[in-house]
Amino acid sequence: MTETVTELRRHLAELTDLRYAAQLLQWDQQTMMPPRGAERRADELATVQRILHERFVSSETGRLLDAAADECNGADPDSDNARLVSVVQRRWEKARRVPSELAAELARAASVGQEAWIDARARSDFAAFLPYLRSGIELKHRYVECFEGFETAYDVLLDDYEPALRTAEVTALFAELKADLVPLLAAIAERSDAVDDSCLHGSFPLEDQRLLVTDVVGRMGFDPASWRLDDTVHPFAMGLGSGDVRITTRWDETFLSMGLFGAMHECGHGLYEAGIASELQRTPLGSGEALGLHESQSRMWENMVGRGRPFADYLAPKIAELFGGSLSGLDPEGFYRAVNRVQPSFIRVEADEVTYNLHIILRFELEQELINREITVDELPEAWNERFLSYFGLEVPDDARGVLQDVHWAAGLFGYFPTYAIGNLVAGGLWERVRVDLPDLDAHMSAGELLPLREWLREHVHQHGAKWGAAEILERATGAPIAVAPFLSYLRGKIGGVYAL
Amino acid sequence: MTETVTELRRHLAELTDLRYAAQLLQWDQQTMMPPRGAERRADELATVQRILHERFVSSETGRLLDAAADECNGADPDSDNARLVSVVQRRWEKARRVPSELAAELARAASVGQEAWIDARARSDFAAFLPYLRSGIELKHRYVECFEGFETAYDVLLDDYEPALRTAEVTALFAELKADLVPLLAAIAERSDAVDDSCLHGSFPLEDQRLLVTDVVGRMGFDPASWRLDDTVHPFAMGLGSGDVRITTRWDETFLSMGLFGAMHECGHGLYEAGIASELQRTPLGSGEALGLHESQSRMWENMVGRGRPFADYLAPKIAELFGGSLSGLDPEGFYRAVNRVQPSFIRVEADEVTYNLHIILRFELEQELINREITVDELPEAWNERFLSYFGLEVPDDARGVLQDVHWAAGLFGYFPTYAIGNLVAGGLWERVRVDLPDLDAHMSAGELLPLREWLREHVHQHGAKWGAAEILERATGAPIAVAPFLSYLRGKIGGVYAL
Repeated sequence: MTETVTELRRHLAELTDLRYAAQLLQWDQQTMMPPRGAERRADELATVQRILHERFVSSETGRLLDAAADECNGADPDSDNARLVSVVQRRWEKARRVPSELAAELARAASVGQEAWIDARARSDFAAFLPYLRSGIELKHRYVECFEGFETAYDVLLDDYEPALRTAEVTALFAELKADLVPLLAAIAERSDAVDDSCLHGSFPLEDQRLLVTDVVGRMGFDPASWRLDDTVHPFAMGLGSGDVRITTRWDETFLSMGLFGAMHECGHGLYEAGIASELQRTPLGSGEALGLHESQSRMWENMVGRGRPFADYLAPKIAELFGGSLSGLDPEGFYRAVNRVQPSFIRVEADEVTYNLHIILRFELEQELINREITVDELPEAWNERFLSYFGLEVPDDARGVLQDVHWAAGLFGYFPTYAIGNLVAGGLWERVRVDLPDLDAHMSAGELLPLREWLREHVHQHGAKWGAAEILERATGAPIAVAPFLSYLRGKIGGVYAL
Repeated sequence: MTETVTELRRHLAELTDLRYAAQLLQWDQQTMMPPRGAERRADELATVQRILHERFVSSETGRLLDAAADECNGADPDSDNARLVSVVQRRWEKARRVPSELAAELARAASVGQEAWIDARARSDFAAFLPYLRSGIELKHRYVECFEGFETAYDVLLDDYEPALRTAEVTALFAELKADLVPLLAAIAERSDAVDDSCLHGSFPLEDQRLLVTDVVGRMGFDPASWRLDDTVHPFAMGLGSGDVRITTRWDETFLSMGLFGAMHECGHGLYEAGIASELQRTPLGSGEALGLHESQSRMWENMVGRGRPFADYLAPKIAELFGGSLSGLDPEGFYRAVNRVQPSFIRVEADEVTYNLHIILRFELEQELINREITVDELPEAWNERFLSYFGLEVPDDARGVLQDVHWAAGLFGYFPTYAIGNLVAGGLWERVRVDLPDLDAHMSAGELLPLREWLREHVHQHGAKWGAAEILERATGAPIAVAPFLSYLRGKIGGVYAL
């Protein structure tokens, strides 16, 4: 490695260390911190973010990038160093348009907003949350104004989570998706009695749920020497380098799916972080970048594996053994049908695979309207409830089951929601391919053997970290760009079977 | 507040935020981090420490301090601002002699050393720990070489934990202490059968121990809204601002004292941090500074309260109720005598109040010899064992129960040990005074009411944070400087009673 690239890497390694320190502050806030620590924590996050931003946007970074780019000129454009320079140059160009003070304020608002949200959601009190949301949106407007050259304001935000994907493309993909989901939902509605999911509702002692989840995530690749699983209010996953992966979940003692599939989802994220090549560690390429690709991993493990027919052969007897009682005779086919019951409901993270995408489209539309100042934050609950009625045919009973259900807007994550449905589409493409590459996949999943799948994903997705964009990783893995068809084909096959459509 | 002081406070607030971020990285390493996260964590700690140091020793800090000192000229020297400037000036003068790179290396070595120590101690393998200790000592030598004007090398290190106290003074205090402890121990040895502590040994389910500890620390002032209690390998306490106080303990299912008195000890530290005046928050005065004063709090709660006769009236029935069995008839007098059994033993943190001080004196002597290059790290186990035999009459059976028992040297904390015995002496002075000021203290403790004592300590000690040095806080609280007599008088009264000397 040349002196110049070494110097750049040293500089970026320090920034990576600082970023992990900021992430630990966030992880701790959401899992461990006593409530009265919130005020100091917001200070700490703002300060670390300010320093991180100052150091990143410094002319020193620019100088090192330019020198390293010169050095890499003519080198293999796919080499780690060439990609490092290219990816960081793009991020640097974007970040340096933002004042460090604004970056700090955004971090502070996210920290403060999350505390306010936890409280407001518990009491279903949107009015208490309103001032935080209002100032959060104002900060986002200030952020958007830092940029030129984006087609829409929303593009600026989406670009932070899904670089290279534009709002217009997402809108087109979602329109295609929705056009197919609506008739599918209508067909299911006519056969709504076809699926009984009563086995998922009952009394599930936490202790036994933890045993079940520990077993399942262990099979996925959760390794206690480098992973943690903790409880939280809104589940998330975080990689602090591949030796320290933290996932979280929440539990419902009356509903089995919450803890189990939530943990599989987050473990899917964690496997991505844990699988990144060691050569990329302590560089900005050492974590996944495009959230849609990240979500493709969590959604695949949660739904295509966790709610798939083969793995039910493993799960059902395990559940029967652990919980006994009315579940002692639980059969795989009945369990499989239960976890795939399609039913419009209020909470996104508990939604079935069909309606889930409509939850996302609703949020995608509303947050564009907020960012485009077409609606105000005061109007948001009503706008939410109206649209919910029109999409799901359901009257939202309270804001906790409506506009207050997700942490994202409290944490300033506008532009994040569409990546969940994009994740479903990407997962559809990858799943089509993996089933060709691993002919014994079903047999393995039936037996509870999940490592062959993980290895395929590590080779084709995880190891690359942020070295390439999502489109390129998908193209390299499957030979095709993002599309609606593979996901719809998967979904129609599965749900059509369950409902005998 | 003037513009200048406001600017200084803003600058120092950022440094305080960064320090808390570094502390959270440490807390997490010792309580939560999966083992394979250790490599990244050492990087993170080194980087945050480097940045913190660079920003603190910058000429900007000097400029702000000078300007603020000018502003404070003529102001009340006891005002928060005048004290802030004075305390920070002294720390700045010391810190800027150290290269930031060395500060970063010390942080990295402490992080790496602790992981190595946990492993080496578990296997009682000093050889595995040796290279870490060697490089730790070399770093300390480099650190000492940054300074002039200290009488001895050890003074440089002691000054970090006990500003204004010098090695020669500590040596004199310890000589006086030892001169009295040795004959006291000899007298006790002749009556070694006088105390039966079998009630402390047996089977104590963790769950019940946790209930006991939760009750006791709750009575001391542990508030779940702003505190945490976690498990760790070597217990410690940490304040991240008064709204976030973290204490840790370890448990022994066969020995009741470990968890209970360990938690009371750390809670004593925590009360100090939690009690600091809100006006000092987010400044360098917002945590305790002199460790001897800090230890006076932990040792007082652990020993003068926890192992005192009055509180036994509360504890003994509580323990009888929780654990039942052979403890169902536990009487306060018997429990009190048991927890005050004096018996030379290997482990410092489990030692009685008499021999405890000898454990400290041994370490104080050995670490001076290490720092003065009178012994090498290779010779340390033998030196330890020889001296242990001569002080305690015991052959050390293995390094886990000898030189490897404490985390301090692994974490680079040379100069820290004497502050424990200094804490005993300071506690002696404060205890003498508090008993005059609170005539109902014994009655309160008998009834399990500990808040009057805490309020006294908050008023006379805690609230001041690092606003004054330990000597001045002690002088203001008691009217007298640090001395051996009050502690010895307390100890002779208590132990003399137990052993009918």
